[in-house]
Amino acid sequence: MTENNSSKPGEVVIKMVLDAWHSKVSQLDKLLSELSDEQLMKEVAPGRNRGIYLLGHLTVLADSILPLLGYEKLAPHLWTPFVQTPDKETTDLPSVNELRQEWMKVKTLLAEKMSAINSDEWLQKHTAISEEDFVKEPHRNKLNVVLSRVSHLDYHLGQMQFLKPRLK
Amino acid sequence: MTENNSSKPGEVVIKMVLDAWHSKVSQLDKLLSELSDEQLMKEVAPGRNRGIYLLGHLTVLADSILPLLGYEKLAPHLWTPFVQTPDKETTDLPSVNELRQEWMKVKTLLAEKMSAINSDEWLQKHTAISEEDFVKEPHRNKLNVVLSRVSHLDYHLGQMQFLKPRLK
Repeated sequence: MTENNSSKPGEVVIKMVLDAWHSKVSQLDKLLSELSDEQLMKEVAPGRNRGIYLLGHLTVLADSILPLLGYEKLAPHLWTPFVQTPDKETTDLPSVNELRQEWMKVKTLLAEKMSAINSDEWLQKHTAISEEDFVKEPHRNKLNVVLSRVSHLDYHLGQMQFLKPRLK
Repeated sequence: MTENNSSKPGEVVIKMVLDAWHSKVSQLDKLLSELSDEQLMKEVAPGRNRGIYLLGHLTVLADSILPLLGYEKLAPHLWTPFVQTPDKETTDLPSVNELRQEWMKVKTLLAEKMSAINSDEWLQKHTAISEEDFVKEPHRNKLNVVLSRVSHLDYHLGQMQFLKPRLK
């Protein structure tokens, strides 16, 4: 591959993926600022997950990026209620307000850790793949974890959007 | 940037993004195969867009990648009803069956065109940005168009999922 107007094609593409992550995080933040705690207690559609569950779920999935990058999780206690347990099967959940704080802490720490990773490191293997497999599958790198989480965030953002009142 | 176990870091990341696109397309295909035309005529949530509208909308947004890559659109006639017009404001829509065909044609042509683009080209400017701006913003390349469409597809996939009956 020859190098085009950027002298470092890998870096341009890494920036694209990280920018996409930060942009989706901002989109969720904006939505959260528009929704009251009461609205977040509602189901996004009849019989579907509630806003509080999706907020917890997205917090956990963001938090789970940390160990793949080599850091410790910040909110491991949220894994059971928001990933392993379907919504409405336990009443033992943090409040919406507590979850807003957890999300804030996780996204902030993640942004800090992400900004400290250099381009070389982004394309190195994440911690859940062996050296042998990585030689055959070099796309299973740290950046790919973020890429898949960008899409996952958008998937649930589309659903959480329904918590906003319909425009008349 | 030194080169890690892939000798071409740009290529690895390009493959990651293209794989993500193809994976989301397959996910939509799977969902479409599970939904009847009648189900696709339903709103994804009360008062929200219908499945038919989102299918048309996603077809248009996939189709709109073609001109940014330098090719002609296949379904320009779908732009007005599925992007410019909100759902349920016109009765002049193709049938669900016709839309299934349009989606099939667009995704197939797009996959064909995508496979013919080499790594250099993916990182070149798309057709909607000037040479001057591109020098300052090299991330506004062809690959970034696909990256943003991956997320967009997932956003609506999350919503269309609600057309499936809830598990008891």
